[in-house]
Amino acid sequence: MTAFEALMAHARETQALAQVAGRLGWDQETVMPRGAAEQRAEEMAAMEHVLHARRTDPRLAEWLETARAPDATGAAQLRLIRREHARATRVPADLAAAIARVTSRAQGQWAEARAADDFTAFAPVLEEVVGLRREEGAALARGGDVYDALLDGYEPGATGAQLSAMFEAMRPRLVALRAAALDAPQLPALAGRFEDAAQLALAERLARAFGYDLGRGRIDRAVHPFSSGSGADVRITTRTDPSDPFNCLYSTIHEVGHAAYEQNVDRALALTPAGQGASMGVHESQSRLYENQLGRSRAFCGWLYGEMRDAFGDFGVPDEDRFYATVNRVHRGFIRTEADELQYNLHVLMRFDLERALISGGLAVRDLEAAWNDRFARDFGYAVPRASLGVLQDVHWSVGLFGYFPTYSLGNLYAGCLHAALRRDLPDLDTHLARGDLAPATGWLRDRLQVHGALLEPADLITRACGVPPSEAPLLDYLETKFTALATG
Amino acid sequence: MTAFEALMAHARETQALAQVAGRLGWDQETVMPRGAAEQRAEEMAAMEHVLHARRTDPRLAEWLETARAPDATGAAQLRLIRREHARATRVPADLAAAIARVTSRAQGQWAEARAADDFTAFAPVLEEVVGLRREEGAALARGGDVYDALLDGYEPGATGAQLSAMFEAMRPRLVALRAAALDAPQLPALAGRFEDAAQLALAERLARAFGYDLGRGRIDRAVHPFSSGSGADVRITTRTDPSDPFNCLYSTIHEVGHAAYEQNVDRALALTPAGQGASMGVHESQSRLYENQLGRSRAFCGWLYGEMRDAFGDFGVPDEDRFYATVNRVHRGFIRTEADELQYNLHVLMRFDLERALISGGLAVRDLEAAWNDRFARDFGYAVPRASLGVLQDVHWSVGLFGYFPTYSLGNLYAGCLHAALRRDLPDLDTHLARGDLAPATGWLRDRLQVHGALLEPADLITRACGVPPSEAPLLDYLETKFTALATG
Repeated sequence: MTAFEALMAHARETQALAQVAGRLGWDQETVMPRGAAEQRAEEMAAMEHVLHARRTDPRLAEWLETARAPDATGAAQLRLIRREHARATRVPADLAAAIARVTSRAQGQWAEARAADDFTAFAPVLEEVVGLRREEGAALARGGDVYDALLDGYEPGATGAQLSAMFEAMRPRLVALRAAALDAPQLPALAGRFEDAAQLALAERLARAFGYDLGRGRIDRAVHPFSSGSGADVRITTRTDPSDPFNCLYSTIHEVGHAAYEQNVDRALALTPAGQGASMGVHESQSRLYENQLGRSRAFCGWLYGEMRDAFGDFGVPDEDRFYATVNRVHRGFIRTEADELQYNLHVLMRFDLERALISGGLAVRDLEAAWNDRFARDFGYAVPRASLGVLQDVHWSVGLFGYFPTYSLGNLYAGCLHAALRRDLPDLDTHLARGDLAPATGWLRDRLQVHGALLEPADLITRACGVPPSEAPLLDYLETKFTALATG
Repeated sequence: MTAFEALMAHARETQALAQVAGRLGWDQETVMPRGAAEQRAEEMAAMEHVLHARRTDPRLAEWLETARAPDATGAAQLRLIRREHARATRVPADLAAAIARVTSRAQGQWAEARAADDFTAFAPVLEEVVGLRREEGAALARGGDVYDALLDGYEPGATGAQLSAMFEAMRPRLVALRAAALDAPQLPALAGRFEDAAQLALAERLARAFGYDLGRGRIDRAVHPFSSGSGADVRITTRTDPSDPFNCLYSTIHEVGHAAYEQNVDRALALTPAGQGASMGVHESQSRLYENQLGRSRAFCGWLYGEMRDAFGDFGVPDEDRFYATVNRVHRGFIRTEADELQYNLHVLMRFDLERALISGGLAVRDLEAAWNDRFARDFGYAVPRASLGVLQDVHWSVGLFGYFPTYSLGNLYAGCLHAALRRDLPDLDTHLARGDLAPATGWLRDRLQVHGALLEPADLITRACGVPPSEAPLLDYLETKFTALATG
């Protein structure tokens, strides 16, 4: 066996074990008995221990020294193995253990602080988390930018400076567009009750329409919608709210974006380092494009209106146009996860700026709440009334996720680029969408992007799929066109 | 850390990983998407690889050399660790790999041969399996009895000679009892249709009544009923047949016997070598006692009759006595898994004798079908019409399970002993059973036996629980009393 073959065989088994760990996470959120939580934590820790040992296996360094890739695909695989090995071995074991310990404690303290609306109760442990992650970033960066090293864990090749430039260009236009949308007359939200079983049946119909292969996946209910797994076993979850069917339907379409991406990766890459989505940002581009640019388009909403009438009868919305406007209703709020397509990125942009400042040391944890409230007031025009609606709303920082938030907006930005290219290549797309036929769009995405898995670096992948390098312009043009028309509509 | 502590920490993580592998098996049989089978095989193989590496970890031998147990519980744990380590290290890796390869192939060939009713198509690969398992037994036995070494993998401490003596004492009495029962006038089987949902609801009610904790378990549907997991996450499956509710109800009670046993092991032993059932035989004693001595008793059938009427209305059985007789109906057949309480052991005893002869070389694989048919005719009084109803009916030998069959009858024998002791200690048991109150019986089993997990060797455990050493007499007395009364009605 050559060194390259040894690396690939090792990576394949690691991927298989990572799938097992992922399935255990799925099990925990869907079917696990309540009383099994403590034992499960120990089972998960044992799996993590096995995976960590494999990722820092001393043989990897030896093999990597002499490995020669036989072809371009092999070179990409080798790049991914090298990258993961570097990330796994640069962080001292005791630092990794300290981060695991502190973030486990921090999650509990965050939940308590949020319930009590008291940021000061969370600040001390958050300061520990920031300090340790900064240390980890420094170990990874080896003299380079600390935040970039953390970001690289979620979005290979991206830098804070690049993202900042694009996000800064987005912010003023989003703020202006938001203000205009909220100045326009407001539509009421959907009223009435929507039966759970009918929501789930329609969600499954949508999942199939968007190309989700239920022969290699399944849909279950969970508290939070998510997608998990790669290759031949990619599962999604959804939830129902009897007063808000859009929650179930659009979270299903969103998760199908993630899941179909994993299912559509070239099967020859299954259980290899490249046999999965290219990055968090590219993943989010798929889920958001499925959900928003396709799922909330005027043409598709026309078809969905008919499906909703079939499923729920007369639900108080008189026609397709009003339905489209209701689906895309812009409303005041505080919570990122409840934000509409227009305002979502404003939530993310502020988190990105704040966390970058936390990691660089430009912002102290004790000043974070004030900085949050100040920025929110500037971008949204009204004050945050309490910490649970502000700085304490997201779990991310408590679990040590720094460098993760920007991938949400980068995903939207990529979705904007892909959508523009898709429209250029498929001029009659709306004709298909109006019939509930997603196949031309999802097929284009599959062939242009999804099939390649992680063979290409994210920015290269988007550039190849679109024919032009990624920028914020297509997303902004799309949002301005759509929401200006809706506001004046 | 002392050598003993190091061993226990290592064993704990191995147990946690074994639980994960078990959960993966559960997933495969219940919720896994069809298309995931191939990928899942690779995930399972990766888990097996990890577990095998842990079980043959060279550090274990070092630790075992110097480990000193701090107390009696520690001594039991050490005994179990030593035993597993010996079994794992005595078998050469290439032999283990050859067995895995051949049995994987043999399963497919068995299924094809069974479908074609052609034993000769299966014989060559079975000969390979027998040869390799014999080789494995010899490696384990180190000069001792080869079959005993295989048996020891399922039933520590048992020997073929001991079992043979008990089974030989059972056989003539079972043959005579069976003939008498079939000479008596025959009751018809249950007729009508029994709605799936009502079957499942009653099955869950029975599971709870028999002490299954659904806060640390769950019930799902699968093609074959089984129980899986230990400690805080022990799941069972069941199945429904609209024309035969007993299939669902009694398989549920049977699996609850296995599952409640695991749930009732002292929680302080969770994720340790002793934190699970003591052996296959002891496990089967619980499942059979729950199912038969309790679940098919006259007193309990009285209560169940009322439940069945509540669930299904008038289902054509006029009263409790007729219901009891229907539940315990003895009927001609060929298939072990469909056999009633009276005839079941005759099926197992012949498999035990045949497989012992195969392993010793006293019986050649090419002569197995003739030997099977001859023995069947002698014990059951009629001929096997085709191989799928005879020698090809069970999957066991194709997957290399030699030494496993006798644990079924040993379990019944143990159940007979435990039932006699239970009746001695709880003279008013029938009063409780007649109210559907299983708590006195399951509480007795929990405190006398289940709580100890694998701390004691199986035969010692039964002896302590019953106050006398195990023998076949109580089971035979019980069966003769019960089925003679039923036959004379």
